[in-house]
Amino acid sequence: MSLEEKLAQLGSHWFDRRGAGEVVAPMQDTFGARRPDFATASRHGLGHLTRVLGTEPVPADEGRAKLACTQRELVAHHRLGLPAIAHEECLTGVTSYGATVYPTPLAWGAAFDPELVHQVGSAIGRDLRRLGVHQGLGPVLDVVRDYRWGRVEETVGEDPYAVATITTAYVRGMEEQGVVATLKHFVGYSASRGGRNHAPVSVGPRELADVLLPPFEMAVREGGARSVMNSYADLDGEPVAASASLLTGLLRDTWGFEGTVVSDYWAVAFLATAHGVAADAADAGARSLRAGMDVELPNTMCFGELAPLVRDGRLDEALVDRAVRRVLLQKAQLGLLDAPAADGTPPGGAPDDDPIDLDPPANRDLARRLAEESVVLLANPDGVLPLDARPGRSLRRVAVVGPSAADPGVLLGCYSYPIHVLPRHPELGMGVDVPSLLDALRAELTGVEVVHEPGCAVVDDDRSGFDAAVRAARDADVCVLTVGDRAGMFGRGTSGEGCDAADLRLPGVQHELVEAVLATGTPVVLVVVSGRPYALGAYTGRTAAVVQAFMPGEEGAGAVAGVLSGRVTPSGKLPVQVPRDPGGGPQTYLGAPLTRRLDRISNLDPSPAFPFGHGLSYTTFRYEDLTVAAGPVPTDGSFEVGVTVACTGERGGTEVVQLYLSDPVADVAQPVRRLAGYVRVPLAAGESRRVTFTVPADVTAYTGADLVRVVDPGTIGVQVGGSSEGDDVLRAQVELTGPRRRPGADRALRTTATVTDAP
Amino acid sequence: MSLEEKLAQLGSHWFDRRGAGEVVAPMQDTFGARRPDFATASRHGLGHLTRVLGTEPVPADEGRAKLACTQRELVAHHRLGLPAIAHEECLTGVTSYGATVYPTPLAWGAAFDPELVHQVGSAIGRDLRRLGVHQGLGPVLDVVRDYRWGRVEETVGEDPYAVATITTAYVRGMEEQGVVATLKHFVGYSASRGGRNHAPVSVGPRELADVLLPPFEMAVREGGARSVMNSYADLDGEPVAASASLLTGLLRDTWGFEGTVVSDYWAVAFLATAHGVAADAADAGARSLRAGMDVELPNTMCFGELAPLVRDGRLDEALVDRAVRRVLLQKAQLGLLDAPAADGTPPGGAPDDDPIDLDPPANRDLARRLAEESVVLLANPDGVLPLDARPGRSLRRVAVVGPSAADPGVLLGCYSYPIHVLPRHPELGMGVDVPSLLDALRAELTGVEVVHEPGCAVVDDDRSGFDAAVRAARDADVCVLTVGDRAGMFGRGTSGEGCDAADLRLPGVQHELVEAVLATGTPVVLVVVSGRPYALGAYTGRTAAVVQAFMPGEEGAGAVAGVLSGRVTPSGKLPVQVPRDPGGGPQTYLGAPLTRRLDRISNLDPSPAFPFGHGLSYTTFRYEDLTVAAGPVPTDGSFEVGVTVACTGERGGTEVVQLYLSDPVADVAQPVRRLAGYVRVPLAAGESRRVTFTVPADVTAYTGADLVRVVDPGTIGVQVGGSSEGDDVLRAQVELTGPRRRPGADRALRTTATVTDAP
Repeated sequence: MSLEEKLAQLGSHWFDRRGAGEVVAPMQDTFGARRPDFATASRHGLGHLTRVLGTEPVPADEGRAKLACTQRELVAHHRLGLPAIAHEECLTGVTSYGATVYPTPLAWGAAFDPELVHQVGSAIGRDLRRLGVHQGLGPVLDVVRDYRWGRVEETVGEDPYAVATITTAYVRGMEEQGVVATLKHFVGYSASRGGRNHAPVSVGPRELADVLLPPFEMAVREGGARSVMNSYADLDGEPVAASASLLTGLLRDTWGFEGTVVSDYWAVAFLATAHGVAADAADAGARSLRAGMDVELPNTMCFGELAPLVRDGRLDEALVDRAVRRVLLQKAQLGLLDAPAADGTPPGGAPDDDPIDLDPPANRDLARRLAEESVVLLANPDGVLPLDARPGRSLRRVAVVGPSAADPGVLLGCYSYPIHVLPRHPELGMGVDVPSLLDALRAELTGVEVVHEPGCAVVDDDRSGFDAAVRAARDADVCVLTVGDRAGMFGRGTSGEGCDAADLRLPGVQHELVEAVLATGTPVVLVVVSGRPYALGAYTGRTAAVVQAFMPGEEGAGAVAGVLSGRVTPSGKLPVQVPRDPGGGPQTYLGAPLTRRLDRISNLDPSPAFPFGHGLSYTTFRYEDLTVAAGPVPTDGSFEVGVTVACTGERGGTEVVQLYLSDPVADVAQPVRRLAGYVRVPLAAGESRRVTFTVPADVTAYTGADLVRVVDPGTIGVQVGGSSEGDDVLRAQVELTGPRRRPGADRALRTTATVTDAP
Repeated sequence: MSLEEKLAQLGSHWFDRRGAGEVVAPMQDTFGARRPDFATASRHGLGHLTRVLGTEPVPADEGRAKLACTQRELVAHHRLGLPAIAHEECLTGVTSYGATVYPTPLAWGAAFDPELVHQVGSAIGRDLRRLGVHQGLGPVLDVVRDYRWGRVEETVGEDPYAVATITTAYVRGMEEQGVVATLKHFVGYSASRGGRNHAPVSVGPRELADVLLPPFEMAVREGGARSVMNSYADLDGEPVAASASLLTGLLRDTWGFEGTVVSDYWAVAFLATAHGVAADAADAGARSLRAGMDVELPNTMCFGELAPLVRDGRLDEALVDRAVRRVLLQKAQLGLLDAPAADGTPPGGAPDDDPIDLDPPANRDLARRLAEESVVLLANPDGVLPLDARPGRSLRRVAVVGPSAADPGVLLGCYSYPIHVLPRHPELGMGVDVPSLLDALRAELTGVEVVHEPGCAVVDDDRSGFDAAVRAARDADVCVLTVGDRAGMFGRGTSGEGCDAADLRLPGVQHELVEAVLATGTPVVLVVVSGRPYALGAYTGRTAAVVQAFMPGEEGAGAVAGVLSGRVTPSGKLPVQVPRDPGGGPQTYLGAPLTRRLDRISNLDPSPAFPFGHGLSYTTFRYEDLTVAAGPVPTDGSFEVGVTVACTGERGGTEVVQLYLSDPVADVAQPVRRLAGYVRVPLAAGESRRVTFTVPADVTAYTGADLVRVVDPGTIGVQVGGSSEGDDVLRAQVELTGPRRRPGADRALRTTATVTDAP
């Protein structure tokens, strides 16, 4: 291959020209304007094709045909006859017109159900494959550090173990379908200062190793992910796109990753334009390639400038070859080096005649099940929920108030096709059937009168609807008050990429609407549909019930309405805390003792309104018979933690049994508690089950004072319950003995849980 | 010396028993309750005596006598006859009843006048010495990272160079008087998460080296500070009180520090009780001693438990000896090993007959000058200031509104004696004369009617005074609206230790008062007297003028009133940004390009209402003839930057000429600009002066990707002006050439500025 042919394999092309106000990637209008046409971009071949389906709204079969046609063109016009790897976004489903919109990842976190997320990953992978797409740009493995960040909705939450296990399940599902999963965003993006998108990250090596990196390690080592996308962040000053220690040292040399590292869109160019660590595009390309970047997305800017540097000796061609080898190896795995099929299907592509329905009943069923499992009942002190809508009961009229009720868009994450692409095409609707909460409630509560008043919009400051909303609430037996976010991109929503929050008060004038409705005295069921947790401390004790849903997708309205009616017994748990106050952040549950309230040391109280892992049901559970290893456990051994969980209410339900560990005396400050295991346990009324966690001592490891990960002998605190905090949590201790041990690169990453009949 | 006698030299005693609600140190009530009596605590001798004057309000001569008496007791009853080192707080002056209260350090930052701060340090040192106090617990060298932190008022601001040069001047002044200066808080305290006191710090080694450590290095190497106090913080998990790499490796081995490391109050015990890195008091003591802690303050808890560990071999006695040697060396330097004087004065003590006036005219004059230099005129678009109060002019009635006008306490920092100690003793008043802003304005504006309405309190939510305030404003020609903080300790104020802010809106209902007064249409001069910058973005463009004062001390009212009347020409500059919005933090001016607004990447705009270094005058200045080295400058050389500054207004004034550097292409992301030199230049009307900065290339160094500090060849951006941003800023570039150089431990830390006649 010529040098130009090699470099072409490290590049990409995007058929897109959008202006400000409609961009879906940062600086898209600026950088996109400089993009060469396809013929120029691909004259020596092409590494990647960017978002052929997820850019302009075309029916799926047309998108597939356009992609196939482009691939055939590449095969025909390029000396080597190689198609490109086609990649597409897939965070909440295939971003193609008419494709299923699953719940957003924060809802996966709330479901605590890796098996179901595995099925979702598999379904998305299968659908991508049927379109001829080889690589999905997901999942997001960022661990939430600041609720104000707009992309919180794209994450699985604030606990590294939960993020790791759930995203790894998604990766497995997608990779099992032969589609390359892409781990986003390696690493540290979520910790941007003030939660502001792309802001620099203040982080040290221990926090990086113990909080931000574990999900990536698990997804590489256990999930078999074949691609990693860099984070835009600079960590303590070092941009990840230019970090050899991360992109090569840790990822490949330590973890054994053999796939490709692809750039987040324009992240290579940002080394010059945004971070100030490169003089120009060529310098940025060279620095990034040296560090271990293999492919530049979404179009070739910097890697296209590298030939002169190689020719005059400033860049070693072996570094180009290293990246090309990885790209070609992946193309070979994907069948792109095979001969074209007789029917004209390009190598590695999808046959044209496979009928496409991207939202079939099986998908919708998956979306529904995940949505139902993800709804979190935060408070229900007087048992107002489930609403008893049977004729003849006291419930005669329900007011459904608030801006989230009638707008199905509030149910969808920012990377869903309707939010991501369709706002420019209102004539196309959603492309899939998305009932609103109001639709679903009317369908659910057939025996009562349902009246609706929005009161206000999600984000503007128009209070003119308050009076009607207050009247509706006052005249009803119960008011279902729906508030929260509407996702968007780059300032076009209240949640999503580039939609960061200055604080955690409900957006717009929703806070005032809540106060006005609460003042009516009508029992209020507060339903928050959002992409981040909002401060609800001002409402606890004044609401009849509080329900939290995290953008639950196209089937989300039925899930929420089903919980309100009692058709669905809630089983979701918080994957993030719900804060008490709008200010004072950042703060997550995962912190050393000094992250907690210390009386009289600060006037600020950082304790949450609802803790991590919290979630109620319509039944009750009792934890008992906690057992742990009686004697000392070697630092290279493992120990069992057993507990019996009983369903003690009048109906059955599913409990998420949670295991937390702590290390009360360590070399460096350790979290008060951290999740180390969990399992969903369905229980019939009156039933008991025994849950046994097997915990490798490796799982207790932390990064010590000398920056090496150690398994430290001494006392380990064990806590089991249905939340991270609460009265029903059971506690015990285990003693680790033996040498202070440095676990190897094959260290055990997870506990296992088995559920058996109670003895 | 016996082991017990040695350990006693590492301990301390505090005659104090306070309960919750009146504490001046964290956990004081809890830990204080366990304190042994003096006889028990000192039975083997004593290292330090804690705050004999600054605890209970006694007249200075009585305090001095009590201290001398205690010292004589130690000499008489201890086998070795050694007095203790007596230490006292001294942040805004000696914390003794009746002592001068100088402006708070944030005001020193605004004055940009190290020479004057040197005189203040000297005056405080002299007064401490006259009381028999050997060591002052100051200054604070923390670099502001989050305006919400309560202790922002105790710092010199958010720029490391400004903090370094100004605190080093204070240290020199104090040390020249023979008093040990104590550098607080080594290191990282100011970067606590969310600005919450004692919260853990997310920080990496580069930010630590380039932002947080430089002031300590300068104060050790150039200031000659003989003591360092640890920070309570844990940095990336490692508590500083147990960090050998910081307390020994960096401080002593690299910087050559030879003094004592003393613990912040109870910081050794916190290793067990708050950080979870020690099992008990003895373990905490051993870990801290090993790391390099020499003296435990404010009373012996953990070091007193060390004897059994030494005896059974768990702790090397050589580590005890190391610390004892340092303490005894310091006692020898202080004269504490000398024979008692014939008149009964204890060794190293003060003679009883030296008459004491801790607030003499010379002190008050210093306090006044520093206060006057520190007042910052933020905005004066229509020239409403100075107020023209001459009889017969249009100004007939001034309404002085707001909670800061009539209360002199708002002028004083949280470590001033009146705020720190006297709240429990209202019968004692302030101990010094502190006119209020209202007093000073009435004295200043003799030709006009001055009416006053507070409107509201600093912090509660009582709005009942709004109507009267609005009426007063409406009926006046000009309204001086005074808002801001009142300092306190641990929740008893809106600023100060333990008084952190959830966001940067003015405390209490002051924001609403501002809106109500602005609505009257009367021209409003907004005067903010605060310990942190508050978000003023909502008011810019609607106020006639804005004046910022940072707790300017006992002479502060006259300084502010003098600026309003025009008697004082303002010359202060912002040592911190004034933010635009209350949320979205943390954010300081010192940041890489991605800390700035990037259009369409985030909806949040972090740009300030007023930038770092900003401050107007009643005259104008013009910058011209910027010259820099014409040719390349070697990386081990230095270069000159020259500029002419002219006073172009109708009256003279003093301009703070500021030099900023930038490194547009570096290994790691570098600040957009950082202060590297400044000088106050007094100019008569029409006068020009030439300022020449000499910049050693060392000053351009940063901590590179390999964590080693380098002087990096390439382009250095140079900027000179009267602010960090603005139209009148002049820019140039310098080329550094030669090898990439690692400066040694003797690297140059500062630029020099010379002011000469303009050519």
